[in-house]
Amino acid sequence: MSTATQAPPPREQGRKRWDTRRTEKRRRLDAVRQYANGPVLQQGDMVAVLEALLAPGDRVVLEGNNQKQADFLARMLTRVNPDKINHLHLIMPSVSLPEHLDLFERGIARKLDFSFAGTQSLRIAQFLQDGLLEVGAIHTYIELYARLFVDLTPNVVMVAGYMADRQGNLYTGPSTEDTPTLVESAAFRDGIVIAQVNQIVDDVSDLPRVDVPGSWIDFVVEADKPFFIEPLFTRDPRVIKPVHVLMAMMAIRGVYEKHQVQSLNHGIGFNTAAIELILPTYGEKLGLKGKICRNWVLNPHPTLIPAIETGWVESVHCFGAELGMEGYAAARSDVFFTGRDGSMRSNRALCQLAGQYAVDLFIGATLQMDGVGNSSTVTNGRLAGFGGAPNMGHDPHGRRHPTPAWLDLIETDDPLARGKKLVVQMVETFQDGGQPTIVESLDAVAVGKASGMPLAPVMIYGDDVSHVLTEEGIAYLYKARSLDERKAMLAAVAGVTPIGLRHDPKTTTKLRADGLIALPEDIGVQRGEAGRSLLAAKSIADLVEWSDGLYQPPAKFRSW
Amino acid sequence: MSTATQAPPPREQGRKRWDTRRTEKRRRLDAVRQYANGPVLQQGDMVAVLEALLAPGDRVVLEGNNQKQADFLARMLTRVNPDKINHLHLIMPSVSLPEHLDLFERGIARKLDFSFAGTQSLRIAQFLQDGLLEVGAIHTYIELYARLFVDLTPNVVMVAGYMADRQGNLYTGPSTEDTPTLVESAAFRDGIVIAQVNQIVDDVSDLPRVDVPGSWIDFVVEADKPFFIEPLFTRDPRVIKPVHVLMAMMAIRGVYEKHQVQSLNHGIGFNTAAIELILPTYGEKLGLKGKICRNWVLNPHPTLIPAIETGWVESVHCFGAELGMEGYAAARSDVFFTGRDGSMRSNRALCQLAGQYAVDLFIGATLQMDGVGNSSTVTNGRLAGFGGAPNMGHDPHGRRHPTPAWLDLIETDDPLARGKKLVVQMVETFQDGGQPTIVESLDAVAVGKASGMPLAPVMIYGDDVSHVLTEEGIAYLYKARSLDERKAMLAAVAGVTPIGLRHDPKTTTKLRADGLIALPEDIGVQRGEAGRSLLAAKSIADLVEWSDGLYQPPAKFRSW
Repeated sequence: MSTATQAPPPREQGRKRWDTRRTEKRRRLDAVRQYANGPVLQQGDMVAVLEALLAPGDRVVLEGNNQKQADFLARMLTRVNPDKINHLHLIMPSVSLPEHLDLFERGIARKLDFSFAGTQSLRIAQFLQDGLLEVGAIHTYIELYARLFVDLTPNVVMVAGYMADRQGNLYTGPSTEDTPTLVESAAFRDGIVIAQVNQIVDDVSDLPRVDVPGSWIDFVVEADKPFFIEPLFTRDPRVIKPVHVLMAMMAIRGVYEKHQVQSLNHGIGFNTAAIELILPTYGEKLGLKGKICRNWVLNPHPTLIPAIETGWVESVHCFGAELGMEGYAAARSDVFFTGRDGSMRSNRALCQLAGQYAVDLFIGATLQMDGVGNSSTVTNGRLAGFGGAPNMGHDPHGRRHPTPAWLDLIETDDPLARGKKLVVQMVETFQDGGQPTIVESLDAVAVGKASGMPLAPVMIYGDDVSHVLTEEGIAYLYKARSLDERKAMLAAVAGVTPIGLRHDPKTTTKLRADGLIALPEDIGVQRGEAGRSLLAAKSIADLVEWSDGLYQPPAKFRSW
Repeated sequence: MSTATQAPPPREQGRKRWDTRRTEKRRRLDAVRQYANGPVLQQGDMVAVLEALLAPGDRVVLEGNNQKQADFLARMLTRVNPDKINHLHLIMPSVSLPEHLDLFERGIARKLDFSFAGTQSLRIAQFLQDGLLEVGAIHTYIELYARLFVDLTPNVVMVAGYMADRQGNLYTGPSTEDTPTLVESAAFRDGIVIAQVNQIVDDVSDLPRVDVPGSWIDFVVEADKPFFIEPLFTRDPRVIKPVHVLMAMMAIRGVYEKHQVQSLNHGIGFNTAAIELILPTYGEKLGLKGKICRNWVLNPHPTLIPAIETGWVESVHCFGAELGMEGYAAARSDVFFTGRDGSMRSNRALCQLAGQYAVDLFIGATLQMDGVGNSSTVTNGRLAGFGGAPNMGHDPHGRRHPTPAWLDLIETDDPLARGKKLVVQMVETFQDGGQPTIVESLDAVAVGKASGMPLAPVMIYGDDVSHVLTEEGIAYLYKARSLDERKAMLAAVAGVTPIGLRHDPKTTTKLRADGLIALPEDIGVQRGEAGRSLLAAKSIADLVEWSDGLYQPPAKFRSW
């Protein structure tokens, strides 16, 4: 050990404690021991338990996902005494229930980091203005998960599952979603994990399978009713219009067939639902089965059922479950990811990874797009967040494996050129209310300024968009050789919006001739064919029939 | 059901089977039932078991990680009869053992998808040339994981852990690494999962904790010896030279302090080890403790011990474990992610996500960089892959949360501007052998062509690099307003390499005045201070002393 003696003195201080987190966790667990039978807690004790397990200023992950909600735990949390428990820093993938905002109104919570707000977005903006709430940041899903392992590690995590046993082993069923990732962040840094379940069983052998091991979970409690789940990805084919069918035909010919798109993710709009529904009719006629759209990264969209039943779909990996699709997914285990018990397992973290790194294409819609292709769904007075769209909707520069579609976007001879993910914005030039979709400047810019946000809330940046598809035509933006050309291409398909009215018809002719834009006729799409008759299912009832009765739509979608 | 009658006939074909994968799995499980006691297999039966569980052409994930290896299973696989089992498609994060390549030599495997090869990279290139092996693609870690859930779902997954019980519950200890992600891809799509462990215990209560639930695992087998693990991230401070210290000082003042870098990932070179080792001396003197380098995404580098002991480090989330650091990490649970049992849990998928989305900075080295900042570690005759570097080393466009460092890279008034991740290449202008690091053209271009690869194997693309740091100075590439300016900035810090000799001293003066590049004196770095005396530990023995004897270096690093 010759050099050791020359080293600087290793200690500048007294013995430091290195297990303060563990000690604090033990203190809190001891404080609720009186209420617990092993990891099992009782409903009626939950307010007292939360008051003992939490401390002011704690970072708390409350499972709010896109679909599944730990709603019982959220309700219990609203009932704690704000004099005891306050200034909580809530970290939530999705803020979806009124209770989530009640926590701020009552002074229990103070700071919020989130990814998506949906119906609560108006109230978040209001509370922010009223000084009741402070926003840490608005993240995408995976950057929120990522921060749980870096600088936002939680003190307490509250999640939801279908069943648990008396050792804390958790069964999530198809609604696995964010649960394993959220739990891991606390279970492995001396945080406390509480799971609400619909049912507690005695032994692990009574569980269909284990999704999260009991050694990661501190407490389980049987909720007063099954956790809330929202059917966010069900689109009723009745609402699909001929223009959606036209745009779907253009997507299939001008994007999917042209670039040989084999793996993909769809947004949740009626446009993309139309694509799913004309694969078995229009796609079949074009002889494209087996050549495009084989591997999907997608929630279990009911509108994908006819394509699955006709053999178009090799696989679907899901972010979350969709209410009513549980039985169908379980009966189609060649296509969906299912466990040994037969039910689906979703996993949002892995599915976001798959959607980012392993697919050829993302296609989605937006409420507003500017003249260079920046887009946002933020409108005045709402702070909605973007969930996973920015992750799906960009070209990941860390990708190194090629596919035909990815390579097809290379436009140079540079030996160092790399391919690109296809990021397609599919929008009608006007919204239903008559507002133009393609605008001079995004509302998001003003909203960002008014809310004091360090960044304008842009969903997808123009420089990440490879194609814009409107009812007028397709702009192949990845081919643009300059910003001016890019603007001209977008204007050429922008119809009679302010941006579209700027375009010069002579330029349009040249852009068409150069293959920089395409009108329907340029890609062999017959406008006359674009009718609802192309839809393989025209109603939810048709989808049920396609599924052999396995799909069981929620009541609000039943009209029979 | 009014519209249903108008729908196209839902069935164009007879009753299709939708559980062919499950049926095939059941068939294979039945074929080995004679050898299995529950999920427990015997060492001596493994060749026969593998011959029954595998089929020609199967996609097989063989756990090969950066550190941990399922080496027993790899050896057993080399012994199967190639007449029975052949044309396997191997999917491996890391190809590290001779056995991995023996599989191709013997005709058992045929196709390879991988991320990193290390010592086997020469043999891969040779086999490719000899037609013994076909490369699917060379991926980064997370895109390889991603494809397991899209179009590369495996039939069989073979992994390694410390312990299992007789129900198949798996304890990985600190070496969790890729295991949960690899297992999930097969467990939830009717694939077969086999785990080798160092020890089988009777009951789940005999396991320190559960890392992967038994219901995801089909078989466990006690290996003939503990799994192989490579101490890849141990850097002996003896080998750190004064020039590394100089560059480390420049990084701290000219990058970390300048941009307020709080969360970060370091590569494995001696340059970055030097940064870790001068935080408690040089960083302390500058009063930077608590202001920079708080949250780390990093393997448990022994050279980080002095910074941890002096209170610089709030947290470290790890990709994998490091041999000898197990006891130290367990004793520092405030800093490292540890389970209820006290031992660390690493998780490469989540750590890659964290390193991509939640940190301010990546800093690493390379073997070659061209005049615009493209870099590669590929040299002639080697197909090494890049592991996680391209993921760490790019600006993720899906990020939406701001940090001071990220925002500090905005150089425009555009209201739609977003921040940038700091991607720093830290290279000496010449390699030890006297070869220039900064070159006209990367060898990777020629290697890509010669190997028939669709892409040149570039590690980090120049357009993703924000800073280049050499012993000459720092080029703040993110400030470049044109490609020519970017080239001039890089040339100005490229020393006497061919690229550096091109620079015009007058330009350099102007670039310094404009803050586009900085020499040591411009950022207050005294060259005379750059000596080994600044290193908080000068040897492995010093690191052991700093750790209070908790760090137990592998024999090859012990010189006392």
